[in-house]
Amino acid sequence: MTIAERLRELGHDLPAASKPVASYVSTRRAGELLVVSGQVSIAADGSAHAGRLGAELDVAAGRRAAEIATLNLLAQIAAATTGQVENVAAVLRLGVFVAATPDFTEQPQVANGASDLLVAVFGEAGRHARAAVGVASLPRGVAVEVDALLALRSRS
Amino acid sequence: MTIAERLRELGHDLPAASKPVASYVSTRRAGELLVVSGQVSIAADGSAHAGRLGAELDVAAGRRAAEIATLNLLAQIAAATTGQVENVAAVLRLGVFVAATPDFTEQPQVANGASDLLVAVFGEAGRHARAAVGVASLPRGVAVEVDALLALRSRS
Amino acid sequence: MTIAERLRELGHDLPAASKPVASYVSTRRAGELLVVSGQVSIAADGSAHAGRLGAELDVAAGRRAAEIATLNLLAQIAAATTGQVENVAAVLRLGVFVAATPDFTEQPQVANGASDLLVAVFGEAGRHARAAVGVASLPRGVAVEVDALLALRSRS
Repeated sequence: MTIAERLRELGHDLPAASKPVASYVSTRRAGELLVVSGQVSIAADGSAHAGRLGAELDVAAGRRAAEIATLNLLAQIAAATTGQVENVAAVLRLGVFVAATPDFTEQPQVANGASDLLVAVFGEAGRHARAAVGVASLPRGVAVEVDALLALRSRS
Repeated sequence: MTIAERLRELGHDLPAASKPVASYVSTRRAGELLVVSGQVSIAADGSAHAGRLGAELDVAAGRRAAEIATLNLLAQIAAATTGQVENVAAVLRLGVFVAATPDFTEQPQVANGASDLLVAVFGEAGRHARAAVGVASLPRGVAVEVDALLALRSRS
Repeated sequence: MTIAERLRELGHDLPAASKPVASYVSTRRAGELLVVSGQVSIAADGSAHAGRLGAELDVAAGRRAAEIATLNLLAQIAAATTGQVENVAAVLRLGVFVAATPDFTEQPQVANGASDLLVAVFGEAGRHARAAVGVASLPRGVAVEVDALLALRSRS
């Protein structure tokens, strides 16, 4: 099954993988490791899930932003591989950066929007180690940025 | 020698490894690499080392918070392996996130609370590359979160 | 060609690799992976590129700070290897931490100062995955900190 098909079952569309307009790349592979660049909470229709947790956004909106950023992460994973769900051996690490005020304390609840989607798509292979922190600000004013390190099946 | 025994020599108790109440996991292994999720400065008795550096907390309190977070990191490493000190081939990277005000500049001094403890436990194998930054806020209002990438001995 | 020679062609001097005065180390190697500690925007003459984006610094100054931090990163890479450009198989991941105000949104433009220099030095091997975020504060008040994960040629 492809990542796109699995997302469709879950009620999501796989967005197009964005191309960076700079010297960096969206994914880098070394053997069976795949490194994915930080993906931000801008939806496929171009609308930014922007703002800070603890100010304009509540946890539900932040959780949704984390999900949007993760859809973009999945688009990059699909583009860098055959797109088959089973080619992801393990999501090793997820970094979740949450734009937040100094007194915001629910970064984990926001980050669960990303974690839950990865497990819904990849099953046990999607269970990852994670660091979730509150940052001062993110590109284009978005609420959430996620990056990842994965292990792929050989030859996938 | 186990990590628990070595900590006891250093005057610390190994805390219980916390279990995440979410879809992520505390550690993920890929071959000889071990990724450990961000661990926060909440002591074994449940007391949070909370607050921001540059505001409520001074460097000594921040250093102590970094040590508490690292005890939790060691608990995860012990739980994910046989618990033997010698099974850790190298602590490759430590991420240290310090809740801090915009004008705080001593993130390295705070992070040394984490680095010094890892070297005390693992010796040369504990010497790691590190990134220490000041973030806006952390889960549950804690002062320090640390995550890590380790190399293990094969079959440990 | 060495990294120092290539930088000279680009109009830069390779700075001396700084030595951490703490228990951490500047680089850690595991097989063909090289992890480099966070390097800050302090120039070879000791002058700090300090301040926050969105406050004292504009994007051009931030971009320059990212370049300075990357020169220090290159110094660590050179010191940890034979110093030959061709020994770097791939820059896998670059972390770019930008000291920024809550309303700053151009972290990618600042981070391009780092990305462009790496590609200028290493060519295609220098194209990396990247996460760029705005943080509350950085060591010594600097504007930019960068860390990296690289793949080296075997035996380099």
